[in-house]
This record gives sequence, structure tokens and C-alpha cells, in this order.
Amino acid sequence: MTKELRFELLKTDGYARLGRLHTSRGLVNTPVFMPVGTLATVKAMTPEELESMGAEIILSNTYHLYLRPGYRTIQQMGGLHRFMNWKKPILTDSGGFQVFSLAGLRRIRDDGVEFRSHLDGSSHFLTPELAVEIQEALGSDIMMAFDECTPHPASESDTLKSLKLTTSWAKKCKVAKKTSQALFGIVQGGMFHHLRKQSAEELIEIGFDGYAMGGLSVGEPKELMYDMLNFTTPILPKEQARYLMGVGDLPDILEAVGNGVDMFDCVMPTRNARNGMLFTSRGKVRVKRAEYKNNPDQLDPECSCYTCRKYSLSYLHHLYMSKEILSMRLNTIHNLHFYLSFMKNMRTAIDQGTFEAFKSKWMEILKQHV
Amino acid sequence: MTKELRFELLKTDGYARLGRLHTSRGLVNTPVFMPVGTLATVKAMTPEELESMGAEIILSNTYHLYLRPGYRTIQQMGGLHRFMNWKKPILTDSGGFQVFSLAGLRRIRDDGVEFRSHLDGSSHFLTPELAVEIQEALGSDIMMAFDECTPHPASESDTLKSLKLTTSWAKKCKVAKKTSQALFGIVQGGMFHHLRKQSAEELIEIGFDGYAMGGLSVGEPKELMYDMLNFTTPILPKEQARYLMGVGDLPDILEAVGNGVDMFDCVMPTRNARNGMLFTSRGKVRVKRAEYKNNPDQLDPECSCYTCRKYSLSYLHHLYMSKEILSMRLNTIHNLHFYLSFMKNMRTAIDQGTFEAFKSKWMEILKQHV
Repeated sequence: MTKELRFELLKTDGYARLGRLHTSRGLVNTPVFMPVGTLATVKAMTPEELESMGAEIILSNTYHLYLRPGYRTIQQMGGLHRFMNWKKPILTDSGGFQVFSLAGLRRIRDDGVEFRSHLDGSSHFLTPELAVEIQEALGSDIMMAFDECTPHPASESDTLKSLKLTTSWAKKCKVAKKTSQALFGIVQGGMFHHLRKQSAEELIEIGFDGYAMGGLSVGEPKELMYDMLNFTTPILPKEQARYLMGVGDLPDILEAVGNGVDMFDCVMPTRNARNGMLFTSRGKVRVKRAEYKNNPDQLDPECSCYTCRKYSLSYLHHLYMSKEILSMRLNTIHNLHFYLSFMKNMRTAIDQGTFEAFKSKWMEILKQHV
Repeated sequence: MTKELRFELLKTDGYARLGRLHTSRGLVNTPVFMPVGTLATVKAMTPEELESMGAEIILSNTYHLYLRPGYRTIQQMGGLHRFMNWKKPILTDSGGFQVFSLAGLRRIRDDGVEFRSHLDGSSHFLTPELAVEIQEALGSDIMMAFDECTPHPASESDTLKSLKLTTSWAKKCKVAKKTSQALFGIVQGGMFHHLRKQSAEELIEIGFDGYAMGGLSVGEPKELMYDMLNFTTPILPKEQARYLMGVGDLPDILEAVGNGVDMFDCVMPTRNARNGMLFTSRGKVRVKRAEYKNNPDQLDPECSCYTCRKYSLSYLHHLYMSKEILSMRLNTIHNLHFYLSFMKNMRTAIDQGTFEAFKSKWMEILKQHV
């Protein structure tokens, strides 16, 4: 354990957990959703806007920042927080997931991954040691170990081989780490219970400041993902934070919190916002629909965000149809506000012992398209 | 004169004028620069941001709003101010300039202009009466008469014919007007002194709430434009506001204010911002230049805007290279803040009788590229 991060478990409701991450840059209430700021900016937002809608931590991507503007540049500018003017905690991923997603552009070796940049085709070699070096230069509050994200489907023997690599890289990351930044391990093991267990046990043996589940929501059926979640989450240490990487569909978040997960990230609220898909208390709204052209109502009557307080559906429809930048701004404000309020209300429900009712209510609403 | 608009001339310094437009939606200090909100949004900005950087009036485009979302929609939503959440004055153009710019897509008749939409090719017929009807439905504070923007070059006889049409349409606009919104006439007359004089006199005879100069900055040499400005401005009534349409190059604004012009609009600060061209107290900055990649300084050390206070050139360079939405936001904030501060400082100079020194100083700076 480092001094930089402490997880405090406040209360449980079933397996759902109410907690707090204490960091040197402030408190993070869990379960938490982390908006994604891939290139040192949560798309279309200022840090002040994120803070005003209640964001307590954001995620940024090592792979993207390594390529552009480069981690040495950010380091010279005083680190990622100062570069982007965000004073609260930042979690950085390890670059592993992005590199493995570069099908055809990468080659996995025992000591790391050779890959070509999606920007200019230039060659690079990302290792566990470099992943830590980059994240240390960025100065994130929580770093992620460099892992291999096992694809789906994968045979048992391939999955075992892959998790062994993840364990070996995780060890190297821990050895390489020079700062007091927190470091999380990432559990792999594909869709096999015993391999998930093995991966978790090997990582716990090494010892990390928190544990993530990777290799889920990679194309497998929902039932299989939920089964893996249900099996794996309880194996992870109770006294540390548990993070389900890249999952942000709200029913999945509800399911995962119900299994004891504390942390989430996803581009869904921000990307959907830019595509005109908005989350509301009555279900999903596609703002481009012609019926909104002359609708003077607010997008979500139960929402208190800037967008809902100040603008009509008619205006949001017009901005979207006109491809105005303000459309992306207003939609992003609304969707992030919705996600962050959703998590806040979920925490209240856990606190009051009513998580199951909260979950049932929202599982119904989330099926609606209005 | 309507009750809705009153121009108060406070002071002169040479021909430069310090004044105030009194409107039912608040005071506008002149000389004023009006940010352009073509489609009911100043691109990338919220109304609150515009207000916080000192914008007192914005311009919106009749042609664009007529096509999308349609003026009836905006009327149903309670008018343009409410639609876009902007509470201060709005000036709308008449659509004339845009329609005439649709080369090949329009045909001029005595009673109006037939044109095809640049969006979907649909046919429309814009008349002086319709231009007023649209602007009344939008509910702008200052409407512009429907004019023919004489192209450059044009022969004396074509220019005369064109100005006669402008006069006849101006008369029709005044007759058509039903509300207390202000209506400005637009002086044409091409590049002929006696025709500029004739146009101005015919419009003054009809009587408007203010007078604009149109058909300038349409491709003629600067010297010719300055000559026309110098000749035409003093002909316009001293006790009313004078508006030079679509001109926003800062040396041109300085020249025009020096001739007694009070109002300006242009897409230059906002469009250039999105293209990474930034105005500073040391000259123009192209933020994409590689030398800014590792530059920790603020864009303009003398600027107090949000962008300059919070971010480095390095970050602005990174956002621009990454085509991030925040790049367009931060650049637009800076450029509009620069323009509005520039106008404010110019008003102070007029107030203190130092306009000529202000003009000379800036004419030098504006030649610089840094």
C-alpha cells in the first residue's frame, strides 16, 4: 500500500458497497463513474464544468497521450493535472487495451508489445516498464498495470497463457514503480472461472493498491459477462477498491455494483451525447427525431443540469441538426450530469439499504426509448 | 424613430464617436463589435460566456434561420432571445447579403429575389416584406432593411440601377414593419461618390432608426474601401448609429471608427479561432506552429481571458492538433475576448481624446505575426 491512496468501506447493502477513496488530491465517493478524458480533455468540457456537475475523478489514456502530445511534453508542462487544468484525481490506464485493439498493427512479445501508431504508422514498443514510466511522467493518482486483454472467444490454453503474461507484466510494473502513485492490478482469465480465480490470486500475491477486472464487455453475451462478474468480484480483497474497466452501460453498472464493484469508466455518456443520444429519467431520447422540432419542453423534466434549465428540446434538436459545436457541449453536459447524478442516487440508495429497489426501478426505465 | 432604440452621442475625438445605444434589452456601448451567431448560436459559445466577456449585442442571420429551423419554429418557441437563451439585444441582417452570395442559385426581380436553398436546393422567394416578417417573428431588437448588395466591380449604370432597387425595397420594408423593433437602412452606391450620396439621401428621406453601409469589403482594394468610408460616413445623420456591415478586420475597424462608424460585425474572430489563428497584444499567433509544442507560457501575457489564465500554449497547441472541441472553445473565448477588449480600450481612448495614438499603436502591432 502507498500513502497516496486509501479505500474506506463505509457500508454494504447486500454485496453493494458504499465507500470512499482518499487521495492526496481529494476524496472520491464510490461507487464512482469516471468520465473519460482520452487526450487530456473530456471531450467538449472544461474542468470547471466537470467539477460543477460533481465529477471527482477522471480517466485519461496512456496510449493516446504517449503518441500525442507525448509524455515528455506533459511532464515538462508540470504533469497531466497542470497541463489540462484538472486538480482532482486522475486514473490512467496502461495503454494495454488500446494497443491490443490495434489488430494487424501489433505483435505481442514476452517483454512487451510492438505496435504501429494509428496516427502515422510509426513503430513503437510498449513494455510494462515503459507503461509505468509514462504514467509516472503523467503524474496520475492511480496507475494501471500493463496487461494483456484476452480476446473473446479464446481457448482455455490461450487464456491461461495470456493470464500468465499479465501476471508477469504486473510484477514488472510493481518493480518498476518509483513513485508513491497508486498502482492497480488487472484480473484477466477470460471466461473461465478457475482462470479468473488464478489470475486474481496471483495478483493479490504480488499486492496492489486496488484491483480491476479486464477482458469483460469484449463481445461476450451479457449473461456470460454477468456470470464472470458475479464469480470474480467476491474473490477480490474487500478492503480495496474494485474497478470494472471500460464498462458504462447503466444496466451493467447496476449489475456490477450489485456484485460489489466500486469504480467504472466509459466513453458512453460523452460519445452518445455527441451522437445525439441522451439519457433521461424517462429513458433514452434521440434528439434528432422530427417530433422535437417544435417542442418547447425541457429534455428531462426531472433534471437540473444547465442544458435542461436553459434550453428547449426544440433548440437542442436545431443545434444537433445544424451540427453546431454547442450541441455537443449541451448534450455532453446533460449526459455526464445524468451519469454522475445516477451514481450519487445509487450511493444514497446503498446508504439507505434500498439498492435492490433502486436497481429494479432503473432496469425498467433503462429499457425505454422516448 | 421608434421607442425601442435611442442613440446617444457622448463624445467625439476627431471624427471618432463615443456613444450608447439604449434598447429595451439594455445598453450597448459604441463603437461596438457584434459577435456573429448565424444559426442562433455564436459558434462554440454559451450566452453566459459571451456575457462574461463583455458582449452587449450579437448579430444573427435571417437567411440561415429562415431555412433552419424556420422562423415560425423560433416564433413558436417565444422568439430568438428565448430560443437561444440570450437576453441582451440582437441585430438581425435582412438575408439580402446571403441571398446575393448564392451565385447561380438566385434571380433578382423588382419585387424580390428567387433563390435556391444551399442546404437542399428548395426554391424560395425573399421579398422586402418577407424579410421584415421574418425579423419580426424572430423578435430582434434591430432589423435591417432588405437591400441589394452591389457587386464589385459594377458599372455606373448598373450601380445606379441597383441602388434604386435598394431604395425601393427599403421603402417597402418601412411600410411593412408592424412592430416597435428598430429598422436600419443600408446605403449602397458601389464605388461612386455621387451614388453613395444619392443612396444615403434617399434613405434619410425615408427615415430609419440607424444607417448601415453595405457593399464594402466585397473584393475592392483597401484604398478604395477607405475612400468610400471616408466619403460616405459624414453624410449619415450624426444623431443616429452608423453601422459598417460585415467588416471586422481590425485595421478596417480602426479606419472606420476614425471616420465616425459606431457598429461592426464579422465572423473573423470566431472563424479564425476555430482555424487556430489567434489575436494577441503582440500580433497574430498560429497555434499549430511546432514551436509551441513545449511552450509553457500563456498565449497572450497581457490577456486576462479564461484561456490565457488557465492554459499554456503547449496545451492549446495539443488541443488544436488533436482537433478537440475544447480547442475551438478556448480559442473562441480568447479571440472574442480580444476583440471585445480591443473595442473597450478604443472607447476609453476616444473618451480620453487619444484615439489617434491608439490607432497608430495598433496599426503597427496588427502587422506582426509571432
